[in-house]
Amino acid sequence: MRSLLVTNIGELVTGDPNWGEGPLGIRRNAALVVDGRRVEWIGRATDTPVADARLDVDGAAVLPGFVDSHSHLVFGGDRAAEFAARMAGQRYTGGGIRTTVGATRAADDDQLRANVARLRNEALRQGTTTMEIKSGYGLSVADEARSLRIAREFTSETTFLGAHVVPAEYADRTDDYVSLVCGPMLTAARAAGARWIDVFCERGAFDADHSRAILTVGADAGLGVRVHANQLSEGPGVQLAVELQAASADHCTHLSAADIAALAGGSTVATLLPGAEFSTRSPYPPARALLDAGATVALATDCNPGSSYTTSIPFCIALAVREMAMTPAEAVLAATRGGAAALRRDDIGRLTHGARGDLVVLDAPSHVHLAYRPGVPLISNVVLNGELV
Amino acid sequence: MRSLLVTNIGELVTGDPNWGEGPLGIRRNAALVVDGRRVEWIGRATDTPVADARLDVDGAAVLPGFVDSHSHLVFGGDRAAEFAARMAGQRYTGGGIRTTVGATRAADDDQLRANVARLRNEALRQGTTTMEIKSGYGLSVADEARSLRIAREFTSETTFLGAHVVPAEYADRTDDYVSLVCGPMLTAARAAGARWIDVFCERGAFDADHSRAILTVGADAGLGVRVHANQLSEGPGVQLAVELQAASADHCTHLSAADIAALAGGSTVATLLPGAEFSTRSPYPPARALLDAGATVALATDCNPGSSYTTSIPFCIALAVREMAMTPAEAVLAATRGGAAALRRDDIGRLTHGARGDLVVLDAPSHVHLAYRPGVPLISNVVLNGELV
Ligand SMILES: [Zn+2]
Ligand SMILES: [Zn+2]
Repeated sequence: MRSLLVTNIGELVTGDPNWGEGPLGIRRNAALVVDGRRVEWIGRATDTPVADARLDVDGAAVLPGFVDSHSHLVFGGDRAAEFAARMAGQRYTGGGIRTTVGATRAADDDQLRANVARLRNEALRQGTTTMEIKSGYGLSVADEARSLRIAREFTSETTFLGAHVVPAEYADRTDDYVSLVCGPMLTAARAAGARWIDVFCERGAFDADHSRAILTVGADAGLGVRVHANQLSEGPGVQLAVELQAASADHCTHLSAADIAALAGGSTVATLLPGAEFSTRSPYPPARALLDAGATVALATDCNPGSSYTTSIPFCIALAVREMAMTPAEAVLAATRGGAAALRRDDIGRLTHGARGDLVVLDAPSHVHLAYRPGVPLISNVVLNGELV
Repeated sequence: MRSLLVTNIGELVTGDPNWGEGPLGIRRNAALVVDGRRVEWIGRATDTPVADARLDVDGAAVLPGFVDSHSHLVFGGDRAAEFAARMAGQRYTGGGIRTTVGATRAADDDQLRANVARLRNEALRQGTTTMEIKSGYGLSVADEARSLRIAREFTSETTFLGAHVVPAEYADRTDDYVSLVCGPMLTAARAAGARWIDVFCERGAFDADHSRAILTVGADAGLGVRVHANQLSEGPGVQLAVELQAASADHCTHLSAADIAALAGGSTVATLLPGAEFSTRSPYPPARALLDAGATVALATDCNPGSSYTTSIPFCIALAVREMAMTPAEAVLAATRGGAAALRRDDIGRLTHGARGDLVVLDAPSHVHLAYRPGVPLISNVVLNGELV
């Protein structure tokens, strides 16, 4: 493995206040060396050790690679027609998630794999070096296991979301479907390498009792817990996530004061997905209240073909600043350390000694430009696991 | 000049309802040939003539190149600190436009040229094949002329905006500054190749009488007329633009019913700049009311370092759909034919026989994806003046 020196960094965002100024731990005129896939050295650009390769970024900003802790990349088809109808104010009578379930089941493995590869690659070019990927469009034992096996080819952060919706063939038999999820589907998900279990806890999907049952049996089987919570309305999801010490409660769009207090007082990260609010013309989550209460906030894409078909963390950062009153620094922190916390990882989302060699070089002098220059492709280089990609 | 065949186009947006289905004039499974910088042939992908070069787009969508009819690319410095302060809710006591005037005057020609080149190139990679560029950060005879000369190196659509604000050295002497703009500055702007004249008609900038005086003398000198109108408040700008048969009234954020009726009844295009509302947390223009009344709408970036530092027309399309209730088709039309109309051009913004060979290939099967996939770099190829760039 060759060592890589990145030098003439105008603004190095270490992501750790112990390593530099302010909440982002910023160092000026810095350099770093990645060796053996880890950050081995951080210092001044004027005082750099020898390395096998050298990347001179000429005053640009360097940030930890983005951590996208919430995505649904394993699917067939798209739902562009549903999107266009929704944006035209028409009531769309299509099948929503179930449309994608049908297209996913109908796709062969290579089609699903190619779709994940396309989107994972698109995200990487926009600076995402770690990406969680969920199942949830298979909804049968074989199709959930297949989705997780394919996801596992791209990431170690795979999430079993058999409890996304009740599939059509189990209409009015939710208890039976929950038994399937908790039994043979969970067994198959573990065999397919799932690290996490997740439930869509929402009216029309799974209620608190079903959600608790599924998440508890998943946790007992050794999976980490995450919850789709309070997306469409206030409900029990967030409190359940905190009760179960879930790593993350995702969406958090409709929160009561008690929900905010629970998140601030517990170990569960509030993962905000403003791409979903953007693409469904919904109100945005109360990020400011969460941050002011002391909750840990993550930003992720929710990339999926129904409600948020973006892979762009820079876009989510710009939305967080425009729509959720986050500062650029808070938004960048949420997309790096916040995402890492939502995956209970401390080796990513920061650039300090021993952290993974995952970083992005901006075509800009400061992290502020990610919000200041919305929609612009600002990622000029990505280093993944110590290698320039 | 080599001829270029673009084939296997899944969705060809001709931009002309006489050339295909619906308002976008869409043709399926199409091909086209650009020869001598013009579109020479449009037909079926199964029935294509021989050409010197061939671009197989494998089912992707092909659109007319975007026409960005409003930008301010000639400037020095940036205003990232002002942006960050505004987003943090702080009152920023910096100089606004005047900060950029100082930095622009202090920059040498090569610095200004490099900045325009960087942004023009960034826009091109995102599909903008025609870009209007304004002066307006020089505000002296020499600095306005210099800005226009540099802009003219990049586009024939150059706009003299000496009446952007009253510069500090003319504080409380607005009449004197207007005389300068109408006299020696206009003469120098014409000599520097300006095609258009523009005024920022707004409280704090130029009132109706001053604006009318400047635009009239500019029109008499042979320049086309455009107006920064009704951005921060309702005011006389839109009505003045229609009265003077301006090609475009730009911003149109705060409109009365009479303003909307005037735009619908006149020949002036309403150019909407949602990037500015995004980056200043302002309400968006009433695009739906304008379209429903029958006005011609254009979408542009307003790219400038103060209020809208984006070069991305795809981002503006996504905002138009999310925030202004435009359909994806309406937004695409506004960013192509609408922009062309705002520049009184009929050779761009469409892909029909004789149109310029300016087109974009999406990494997607439909124009809908420009709004459906927000923030994602979706432009896979750009053809400019018949050449693949
Ligand atoms: Zn989700
Ligand atoms: Zn402007």
